[in-house]
Amino acid sequence: MSAGINTYKIDLREVFFTLFEQFGFGQVAGQAPFDAWGSEEAKAVLNETYRFSKDVLGPLNASGDREGCRVENGSVITPKGFKEAWTKLYEQGFKTVGVSPDHGGQGGPMMLQVLVEEMLSGANSAFNMYPGLAFGAAELTAECGTPEQKKLYVERMLNGTWGGTMCLTEPQAGSDVGAAKTTARKNADGTYNIRGTKIFISGGDHDLAENVIHLVLARIEGAVPGTKGLSLFIVPKIRVKPDGSLLGPNDVTLGSIEHKMGIRASATCVLNFGENDACVGELVGGIENVGMSQMFKMMNGARIAVGIQGLALASAAYFNALEYAKDRKQGAPMNKWKDPTAPRAAIIEHADVRRMLLEMKAHVEGIRALLVKLAMHTDKAHMLAGKDDEQAAYHRGQVELLTPLVKSYGSDQSFRLCAQAIQVYGGAGYCQDYPVEQYTRDSKIFSIYEGTNHIQAMDLVGRKMGQAGGAHFQQFMADVGAFIDAHREHKTYGEAVKQLAAAQEGVMASAMAVLGWSQEPAKMTLIPLSANRFLNMMSELAVGWLLLDAAVIAERVGASATGDEKAFYEGKKWSALWYARNVLPNVEQAARMMATEDTSSVDISLEAFGAV
Amino acid sequence: MSAGINTYKIDLREVFFTLFEQFGFGQVAGQAPFDAWGSEEAKAVLNETYRFSKDVLGPLNASGDREGCRVENGSVITPKGFKEAWTKLYEQGFKTVGVSPDHGGQGGPMMLQVLVEEMLSGANSAFNMYPGLAFGAAELTAECGTPEQKKLYVERMLNGTWGGTMCLTEPQAGSDVGAAKTTARKNADGTYNIRGTKIFISGGDHDLAENVIHLVLARIEGAVPGTKGLSLFIVPKIRVKPDGSLLGPNDVTLGSIEHKMGIRASATCVLNFGENDACVGELVGGIENVGMSQMFKMMNGARIAVGIQGLALASAAYFNALEYAKDRKQGAPMNKWKDPTAPRAAIIEHADVRRMLLEMKAHVEGIRALLVKLAMHTDKAHMLAGKDDEQAAYHRGQVELLTPLVKSYGSDQSFRLCAQAIQVYGGAGYCQDYPVEQYTRDSKIFSIYEGTNHIQAMDLVGRKMGQAGGAHFQQFMADVGAFIDAHREHKTYGEAVKQLAAAQEGVMASAMAVLGWSQEPAKMTLIPLSANRFLNMMSELAVGWLLLDAAVIAERVGASATGDEKAFYEGKKWSALWYARNVLPNVEQAARMMATEDTSSVDISLEAFGAV
Repeated sequence: MSAGINTYKIDLREVFFTLFEQFGFGQVAGQAPFDAWGSEEAKAVLNETYRFSKDVLGPLNASGDREGCRVENGSVITPKGFKEAWTKLYEQGFKTVGVSPDHGGQGGPMMLQVLVEEMLSGANSAFNMYPGLAFGAAELTAECGTPEQKKLYVERMLNGTWGGTMCLTEPQAGSDVGAAKTTARKNADGTYNIRGTKIFISGGDHDLAENVIHLVLARIEGAVPGTKGLSLFIVPKIRVKPDGSLLGPNDVTLGSIEHKMGIRASATCVLNFGENDACVGELVGGIENVGMSQMFKMMNGARIAVGIQGLALASAAYFNALEYAKDRKQGAPMNKWKDPTAPRAAIIEHADVRRMLLEMKAHVEGIRALLVKLAMHTDKAHMLAGKDDEQAAYHRGQVELLTPLVKSYGSDQSFRLCAQAIQVYGGAGYCQDYPVEQYTRDSKIFSIYEGTNHIQAMDLVGRKMGQAGGAHFQQFMADVGAFIDAHREHKTYGEAVKQLAAAQEGVMASAMAVLGWSQEPAKMTLIPLSANRFLNMMSELAVGWLLLDAAVIAERVGASATGDEKAFYEGKKWSALWYARNVLPNVEQAARMMATEDTSSVDISLEAFGAV
Repeated sequence: MSAGINTYKIDLREVFFTLFEQFGFGQVAGQAPFDAWGSEEAKAVLNETYRFSKDVLGPLNASGDREGCRVENGSVITPKGFKEAWTKLYEQGFKTVGVSPDHGGQGGPMMLQVLVEEMLSGANSAFNMYPGLAFGAAELTAECGTPEQKKLYVERMLNGTWGGTMCLTEPQAGSDVGAAKTTARKNADGTYNIRGTKIFISGGDHDLAENVIHLVLARIEGAVPGTKGLSLFIVPKIRVKPDGSLLGPNDVTLGSIEHKMGIRASATCVLNFGENDACVGELVGGIENVGMSQMFKMMNGARIAVGIQGLALASAAYFNALEYAKDRKQGAPMNKWKDPTAPRAAIIEHADVRRMLLEMKAHVEGIRALLVKLAMHTDKAHMLAGKDDEQAAYHRGQVELLTPLVKSYGSDQSFRLCAQAIQVYGGAGYCQDYPVEQYTRDSKIFSIYEGTNHIQAMDLVGRKMGQAGGAHFQQFMADVGAFIDAHREHKTYGEAVKQLAAAQEGVMASAMAVLGWSQEPAKMTLIPLSANRFLNMMSELAVGWLLLDAAVIAERVGASATGDEKAFYEGKKWSALWYARNVLPNVEQAARMMATEDTSSVDISLEAFGAV
């Protein structure tokens, strides 16, 4: 893929359907705190974001991958064009659509912001990590910082003046964050002296902004072991005065950057804090030993952001593969396949190519619906806070429950579907002339960072399912159940809705099984063994539901559509039917397998795995 | 991964089990035409191959990937060290274990040769393609060439003097080989003038040997369109005299090489034949218009070779991930997971890591068993040819039937399991410090080249299933049935055998469904729509059967084993039980889905896929 060629593609009609027709953007638009937003404003933002993604970020995706980042004089140099793109991104306000006006933002709903983010990530995943991390660090500081910290750091990290990072991982502390060894010692002036090494820090150094603000987990001397003894510190790369002017280098040095399978234009850094015992940090919010819960405020957003990345690349892979399949001629049409003189058909005419494309289409649309639904719950929770506490709690609960699904299912399917896009192209897809091999390489990290998908699965079964006495889960199941009851006899979708009901029974049975295991010490090990399977089942139930919901809506609102609109609404039907027939039955099957309580993976002795 | 570090790993105990204990190497060893071979000879070859793979090929795997191939003065330069490795490979005879003594080979059984190939490919997939293609071209020439062609080309392509390629694909003719436009015009001296462009030619040019012999599909002027009008030509890069001495350049020029996701050290070439109207080719065997069937003799071997590549990387990924999981400490042990002061556990102690490893172990062992079974049938067919025609035909039939399974299941699972190995490592696996990200990139091509996996699936359902009036398939099912009957009440495996029986019923029901569709024009489209699913079902049935077969044998022969041997045999048990409990149930489920006759992928209109 030559640099400069735009490869990002999406069908905005599908985005509009999800936002406006399926999830009723009108229910949040125009109401406090989203007073300033209406459907026209939202459409304008989405159109502009698509243009920016295609024209500015897309052309830097392949070139950024080929060039990668490099280290010069102890600093990261990002690929050609990134600095200019960063400037334009902030000038045009794409990162502040969902930010509160208190911090210089536009106060838009999250429903809109997640779709903006999808396009930015889809056009250039590696690039969008730099502003993405800065955004997360700013949100955390806005939520947990002291008034002075908010004033000094938040807006500058939101408007592109400064970058930001989250520094959790250490060589011995990956998934096991509580094993962190980085230390903090209080200085006489109230600041802290930070010492330690952090690894896998995305955007840990770069040349896009004049400063990078690190949020660093460290243990204050004397604090307890594990996560409960961790505190969070603001550690600027360059020290700053209270007015925001730069003082001079802090004692933070770049150790090295990783050479990775993908997202090669995103600098993944080893950072050394306090090599000269002169690294100064401020305690976030001035409170000790609450670093983990503070970091988790950022982490939930980060996990949703990873789900968005997954959706973004799967969708970009789908639309690129679709275009290729309509264009590329190969073989005879299905009805003349033995006639070598027949005109060659576009490969989308071949049954297997069509099968792969419809599988991609259904998953992409279903995952997008799940994401927008999660965002809608976030928005409604904000709208109802202080007005209807019970409803607000319901919406917040759904956000909690759906976050691990969006992160894990979004990332797992992303990698699988990007690889399937390669298969649609055939040998051409394996070459760098087309973007899908890069999408595949880029997407593999999504199942790992911001908490591996197993950590997400354990978050679901060990934490979210039981939250509020199980209320979030029960409310989710009640929502699915209400849809089933309403549409069981639907003329077009009745059969598919029955399949959904069977899937729901499977999820319920497995949830009961997990609950039973949690009360029986001898069976406890079945929980981590089955957690990923359960998360996947629940994701398939949710996606199947939302695809059918979309199809029912499409049949209603599209009844008299013609031309392109008619074709669009027809597409919603086949996404839902394909998924109901080819994926939902697996949920029942997975429930049967969970019920067998297979423990072979832990019964096998360590030695029996083989000698290496 | 720094160049020079050896990363190839296998447990030879497992290889020996499959060859000697499960598939009774002794039944072919020592008998004509394998008179010279016994178990000790085979073990010695396997030990030496492992040493060579670790010490010579393994250290060039990462460095070859990073360096890639380049073009200088119209020729391909392979990565540093490849030339020396090529020389050693041939000096030590690894490529001729299975070659007939008539062509300078060692006359060993294919059962042994495939395991040798597994290690060569596992250590360095990209490197092993150069000798692999030469081997295929030599085999084809040995089978189809005139006596003069055999004498001139075969041994030189088998001993490393000359390389070899197969040139099928053209820009407009990929899966649709019959659309080839390359032409041949007969010269007065009986040679042919070749003109055309071939793409995706693996090893199409390189600096490892003094010459490269291309086998080129072309259409003789006036021949019919489609595959039936194609002839096969020997087209040397450098023209040769009948005594093998080099005459001077032929009119074959290197257009370019591809930049690929993986196997980057394997040169994938665009070749232009006859740009100056002076490209000379010889007709293979002197027979016109039989090029496709000649090429297919090479193609079957090439497809098995791709299955071997898939197995090789999945196995290498497994053993690397296993070693890492035993070594890497992270988190508390399962029984103390809330205690931050507990000593950290190796990650293999964690249930989810163990689940991933056992899944990899079971698949790798099952696919290896399937491969060795296929090779055993090949060997027995050779042994029995002319002695027991009926039995020989049975064995040949099983080779035909199993080839698409080995190619497709081997390649699909390879990519999936290599990616799973990354997940075992976590973030480290995404970095080039470990080999698994490269394995993942390398393995993605296996589902595409030598006939996409959909072409394999159509080969199975459209051709192999019906061969000999369905006899091959019926014999396969009878063999599975005999195992089920013998072990249905097995003390340890009875339950698992019942699961196998249910899977067999699923495959049988789906086979009947396919047969029904083939006789009903309105349902014909269900065949390509379901072919991949059916191939996967049949592969899972075969692998489940062979894993249980291995486990039953292990229980018997390992009854009084102690120490490492006891652990090894225990491992066979868990591989079989894990697969029976977690994969075989999906076969039944897939059969139920086939029975729904879902045609949504072809019912959807082209326009409904979306606007791009």
